[in-house]
Amino acid sequence: MPEVIYGAGKTPEQIIGILNVMKENGQSRVLITRLSGDAAATIASVHELDYHADARVGIMGGLPEPNGIGRIVVATGGTSDIPVAEEAALTAEALGNEVVRLYDVGVAGLHRLLSHLEEIMSASVIIAIAGMEGALASAIGGLADCPVIAVPTSVGYGASFHGLSALLSMLNSCASGVSVVNIDNGFGAGYMASLINHMEVKE
Amino acid sequence: MPEVIYGAGKTPEQIIGILNVMKENGQSRVLITRLSGDAAATIASVHELDYHADARVGIMGGLPEPNGIGRIVVATGGTSDIPVAEEAALTAEALGNEVVRLYDVGVAGLHRLLSHLEEIMSASVIIAIAGMEGALASAIGGLADCPVIAVPTSVGYGASFHGLSALLSMLNSCASGVSVVNIDNGFGAGYMASLINHMEVKE
Amino acid sequence: MPEVIYGAGKTPEQIIGILNVMKENGQSRVLITRLSGDAAATIASVHELDYHADARVGIMGGLPEPNGIGRIVVATGGTSDIPVAEEAALTAEALGNEVVRLYDVGVAGLHRLLSHLEEIMSASVIIAIAGMEGALASAIGGLADCPVIAVPTSVGYGASFHGLSALLSMLNSCASGVSVVNIDNGFGAGYMASLINHMEVKE
Amino acid sequence: MPEVIYGAGKTPEQIIGILNVMKENGQSRVLITRLSGDAAATIASVHELDYHADARVGIMGGLPEPNGIGRIVVATGGTSDIPVAEEAALTAEALGNEVVRLYDVGVAGLHRLLSHLEEIMSASVIIAIAGMEGALASAIGGLADCPVIAVPTSVGYGASFHGLSALLSMLNSCASGVSVVNIDNGFGAGYMASLINHMEVKE
Amino acid sequence: MPEVIYGAGKTPEQIIGILNVMKENGQSRVLITRLSGDAAATIASVHELDYHADARVGIMGGLPEPNGIGRIVVATGGTSDIPVAEEAALTAEALGNEVVRLYDVGVAGLHRLLSHLEEIMSASVIIAIAGMEGALASAIGGLADCPVIAVPTSVGYGASFHGLSALLSMLNSCASGVSVVNIDNGFGAGYMASLINHMEVKE
Amino acid sequence: MPEVIYGAGKTPEQIIGILNVMKENGQSRVLITRLSGDAAATIASVHELDYHADARVGIMGGLPEPNGIGRIVVATGGTSDIPVAEEAALTAEALGNEVVRLYDVGVAGLHRLLSHLEEIMSASVIIAIAGMEGALASAIGGLADCPVIAVPTSVGYGASFHGLSALLSMLNSCASGVSVVNIDNGFGAGYMASLINHMEVKE
Amino acid sequence: MPEVIYGAGKTPEQIIGILNVMKENGQSRVLITRLSGDAAATIASVHELDYHADARVGIMGGLPEPNGIGRIVVATGGTSDIPVAEEAALTAEALGNEVVRLYDVGVAGLHRLLSHLEEIMSASVIIAIAGMEGALASAIGGLADCPVIAVPTSVGYGASFHGLSALLSMLNSCASGVSVVNIDNGFGAGYMASLINHMEVKE
Amino acid sequence: MPEVIYGAGKTPEQIIGILNVMKENGQSRVLITRLSGDAAATIASVHELDYHADARVGIMGGLPEPNGIGRIVVATGGTSDIPVAEEAALTAEALGNEVVRLYDVGVAGLHRLLSHLEEIMSASVIIAIAGMEGALASAIGGLADCPVIAVPTSVGYGASFHGLSALLSMLNSCASGVSVVNIDNGFGAGYMASLINHMEVKE
Repeated sequence: MPEVIYGAGKTPEQIIGILNVMKENGQSRVLITRLSGDAAATIASVHELDYHADARVGIMGGLPEPNGIGRIVVATGGTSDIPVAEEAALTAEALGNEVVRLYDVGVAGLHRLLSHLEEIMSASVIIAIAGMEGALASAIGGLADCPVIAVPTSVGYGASFHGLSALLSMLNSCASGVSVVNIDNGFGAGYMASLINHMEVKE
Repeated sequence: MPEVIYGAGKTPEQIIGILNVMKENGQSRVLITRLSGDAAATIASVHELDYHADARVGIMGGLPEPNGIGRIVVATGGTSDIPVAEEAALTAEALGNEVVRLYDVGVAGLHRLLSHLEEIMSASVIIAIAGMEGALASAIGGLADCPVIAVPTSVGYGASFHGLSALLSMLNSCASGVSVVNIDNGFGAGYMASLINHMEVKE
Repeated sequence: MPEVIYGAGKTPEQIIGILNVMKENGQSRVLITRLSGDAAATIASVHELDYHADARVGIMGGLPEPNGIGRIVVATGGTSDIPVAEEAALTAEALGNEVVRLYDVGVAGLHRLLSHLEEIMSASVIIAIAGMEGALASAIGGLADCPVIAVPTSVGYGASFHGLSALLSMLNSCASGVSVVNIDNGFGAGYMASLINHMEVKE
Repeated sequence: MPEVIYGAGKTPEQIIGILNVMKENGQSRVLITRLSGDAAATIASVHELDYHADARVGIMGGLPEPNGIGRIVVATGGTSDIPVAEEAALTAEALGNEVVRLYDVGVAGLHRLLSHLEEIMSASVIIAIAGMEGALASAIGGLADCPVIAVPTSVGYGASFHGLSALLSMLNSCASGVSVVNIDNGFGAGYMASLINHMEVKE
Repeated sequence: MPEVIYGAGKTPEQIIGILNVMKENGQSRVLITRLSGDAAATIASVHELDYHADARVGIMGGLPEPNGIGRIVVATGGTSDIPVAEEAALTAEALGNEVVRLYDVGVAGLHRLLSHLEEIMSASVIIAIAGMEGALASAIGGLADCPVIAVPTSVGYGASFHGLSALLSMLNSCASGVSVVNIDNGFGAGYMASLINHMEVKE
Repeated sequence: MPEVIYGAGKTPEQIIGILNVMKENGQSRVLITRLSGDAAATIASVHELDYHADARVGIMGGLPEPNGIGRIVVATGGTSDIPVAEEAALTAEALGNEVVRLYDVGVAGLHRLLSHLEEIMSASVIIAIAGMEGALASAIGGLADCPVIAVPTSVGYGASFHGLSALLSMLNSCASGVSVVNIDNGFGAGYMASLINHMEVKE
Repeated sequence: MPEVIYGAGKTPEQIIGILNVMKENGQSRVLITRLSGDAAATIASVHELDYHADARVGIMGGLPEPNGIGRIVVATGGTSDIPVAEEAALTAEALGNEVVRLYDVGVAGLHRLLSHLEEIMSASVIIAIAGMEGALASAIGGLADCPVIAVPTSVGYGASFHGLSALLSMLNSCASGVSVVNIDNGFGAGYMASLINHMEVKE
Repeated sequence: MPEVIYGAGKTPEQIIGILNVMKENGQSRVLITRLSGDAAATIASVHELDYHADARVGIMGGLPEPNGIGRIVVATGGTSDIPVAEEAALTAEALGNEVVRLYDVGVAGLHRLLSHLEEIMSASVIIAIAGMEGALASAIGGLADCPVIAVPTSVGYGASFHGLSALLSMLNSCASGVSVVNIDNGFGAGYMASLINHMEVKE
């Protein structure tokens, strides 16, 4: 299991310090979220780091082999939701999951969504990411028979009120099997999905 | 054209008084909205009145022959939205429109919605009515090529905040050709749809 | 799998009608949520029904043998949250899960919460239910290594704003592995938990 | 019919790429909304583009001949609402409509509004655009006998709460035949108005 | 000057007690606001009281001769706003003002409003009362050259949010010379208008 | 009477153009509000202009002799409210009123407020300006016997929510004779106060 | 120290059960808050109980001798705040404090407040309780040199939004030494004040 | 006792002026809050000043010997809350209190919190500082037997709504003995805690 560093509000120097300690403790894989490009560049001068600019995610030590129950589908309503989706997808991958990306399949174009029915039906967990009216969670929740983690995004303007519109929508989903994380919280959704995808019998 | 009386906050006696004046003025058709069953009973003892309990609508003088450009489809996400839908449908019918009702076709069951694709594609105007996450407006807006009037309803609980969730959703619809009326405003949607369905060249 | 009927806004007669159809179709188990005591009594005169007054849940056909991966723990912050908790617990049981109830273990009494560490650590899924400040989700999320479904309740007064306080709290949980359903949505949490507890490899 | 590109959040390079594909597919007319001046300049170095700085709209391929049922009137309460109005007007023109602009006719100066009664009465559709108290929609809705699309704007300060005040006002319009789009959504209003102005009999 | 008793939350017995003390102190005129019909009946069995059921106002000692600078116009957008208007009008009359009532002159029917231009232009102070979109304050504020006190009312439903819509509208009025009191606060408006209508030189 | 130009959203060139027209029409006095220092400098190179940087107000043609009924007191709760207060005071002065400034007399230091009782009691109109808890309006409203115009300001942080706290406070003032204008609307308060201070008998 | 039972949502039978257990454990003093009159009557038939109807508080075992550092002053802005004040005062008394009640000393009548300056200055802790604009906390906070616990109440209407107005006011108090509890939470304020009034050196 | 200057909105020159006057009046200790680094540098060129960059606090004249009843514990949920915590701690120290800092002891890691049980139990007053879900106040309130001052912080994103989430949480704390100050108001909490920690018998 990789360690996770929440990069927001930390200086590159602080992050390098944490990485040093982790390395000493034998931790070979680290996921850093909410990491700016500038901070990533500074860190990369000291530690080997794969930086994903869209997702603002840095990964040290590469991605592990997937070892979950099945596949995690990460779906977005639009293209503007992709940064949050990539944060979710990379988190899930870093935690040992196979991820299928279905981007720009919002309900205003149902044919696009439905053309991916096979991926949706074969998923073990689905992360549904959308801003504006956030309808994707309900549409996917109605189609799929697996747990759906909904992520509202702050994409939109005016009466989207920085993600409030999508958040309320998703909380009120009329489909069963949908739960919700904070606005723009791609990491939280990826982590939760990975937990679910690694369920096993406890004795 | 029928006259319209907004029944909320008016006593049956006041409504009877208005009806008397209208009748004297030769008005043979009247639509009364937000009319309680008790008030309707009192009025019905004086004037002939068709009362629709679900919609809380009373109609005096019967429904006219439809004379609009095409058909108005009234669709709802769930069965609890039907009272608002009936207010919209009866308003449209009283104003001279053919109405097709598609109830309980919410996005959590896309197959049901899609099985009515023909009605949707042949509509001149669609009224999309939904509470909770209000996703129906976007789904229909994406399918149809005609104007869509969205009506959020106060159906739901908790974070639906009495219709706020559906209202914000519909205002943020990512589909083009969707506009919104007040929460539970079936009459307003029916009236607007009828105006659109009676468009004609002005000289 | 039992069928589910959302009882709110349906008359006892409508529910009996649905039950008749279900029975004809060979469905022997039905879960009815948001069912008033009066409606339950009417239904019970026609169909055999176990009614749980606290949870406002009726169950027809008894509870099945648990067949999930592990145990679902249902925990509440206070005693006033128990009706929502029972809705969640009975839903999970009706869907084939073993349920452990931990009631009144809110963070204002950490010793009580910690005295149940064993149940928490051996859970496969935890449903954390709390009103007011909703802190239980974070406390449990920090202790447990399994998925946590958080349910805000409308318990409280003043600045709890009918559950908004607990809802925001839970969405902002600083613990990983927590997702949230609508205010008072015990059913949704129980359903989601059951989906997770029945994860299996898809081919 | 022109294609539409929503420019917000897209790089000039991405837009040029989309335009290239559209051109290859034989699309000669394209409308680009929410386009910054800098992006427009970059695009204009590759594709012929009319850029309207106020409206932040770029049009490729010129405006078509109007072929709607009648005229669309675009009215604003103040001069600060003009950018949104121009987005609406140019959208409507690009979609084949004759547009009449009535700017700065807010209800605080009723004489100005009433001096344009003729334009209002001869309109087929009216787009009423206002910030602050958003009263224009009701005033015009009361005068006109055609559909009115209301657009709240984020113009104002303090208790206008970035357009919330105008949005609520317009949703509560006491005039019939008014529906509302998102705050500052000039494009949405222009598109909806064009749909209405091109109504025709379906067989 | 009459004394004023705010009746809400006081028992008839408490009010009678206060009236007894006032009478002993030689106070012959008293205005009681927010007084229920039942309480008024109890009080009327002890003290002579004119009760105005619409306004929920009781007046002891009759109305004084008007002695203000000019006339106060009380205008409402609709008929449902009349109870608040009567509270304002009776307050102003009890405080020695001549009051002109202009009811149901909302902006959705500008012709009605404009047919009363003479009363509006000859007013010394105007109280503009409206629910829903609250546009009356701006329309009157634009026409009149005297101070306008705006009173939002809780009339409406859905997105009127119990008067919030009208309140925000009125605070954002684009007309100069408009200030606002609390939702449904007819008394406050009448009192403020009377203060203004009794302005005099201080030495 | 001076003309008023609302400077926000206008370029210096536009303002100079308006001033040119006004001058041609014989208007010698102009008040410009919400005017930035840079814009003022540009305008001052063409027209003689007194610029008040704190208030962001420019005055052309000097201040007239006061000719109102009495004095207008402009009071603030703190020193951070002074910019809004100066906008109010200069507006009132430009409209022909004598203004007394009482700054930093908030309720957390009642002795300071009470030491100015004489100015308060001799005022014809008072403008009470405060951010944060906005209590000044009630305290002054309770002391004074003249109309009080309350101006909430956006001064504060956290739960002041950009002036919402002070706005709600002032609308709920338990003192009679208080009405409220928009957040930070010094001009509106000064204009309203001047209208009141120039009340005269109409025939 | 008395035990405390939060009565809301508990049946009289449940409370009697708890009281029985407490008595068996030798607890002679119990405070029951949020207790309805009906429930109190049922309990009083089994246990000796002093019931305070205004405060909805029941006390078993009488009040102890005060043993705090000094006096706790409980002050209210109006008479409608008294029920909350009595809950606070009785809680403090039950916990061993001397309480001074100063009711109806709101800022709209500063003379009343100032006539009690001696009580205010000699207090060890002050509980300031007010609805509507909640200004009392700041006024008292500015006068006193001891800790002030502010309690917003839900007294008011319209823009008081069930206590939100007073809550925000009190959180934004410009006086130092003020902290706030939940709306209508008289118990919480009394408990906190008692803790403070019983401060002692720990070793 | 040191004097306190609220630095926000004051120029370095204004602050130097105030310091000059204070020094002349014999005030040797001054605490300046909300002071930017640049302003501090300018002031430090004139007056000796200890500047704490994290807390944005400047102290002139050094810290006094602690002379309170006991120790004040300042605890935070996370590391991002430290700036607010330092403002609280330095305020308390400047006012003569011994302060114990417990940083990053949030409820998502109960073991860390519980490992500091001794410090918590031996505190005289505790300041609990947290953003996001604000659960720390309840957890500490349940453990401690001393007054707890809760400070919500604006740390977080999305549904934390700039501190609203933590604020509501803390107001709804189910633990007794907790009161709340404004979002990010470290100074207010430190001041209140110091008042409590200096309680003494008044005669």
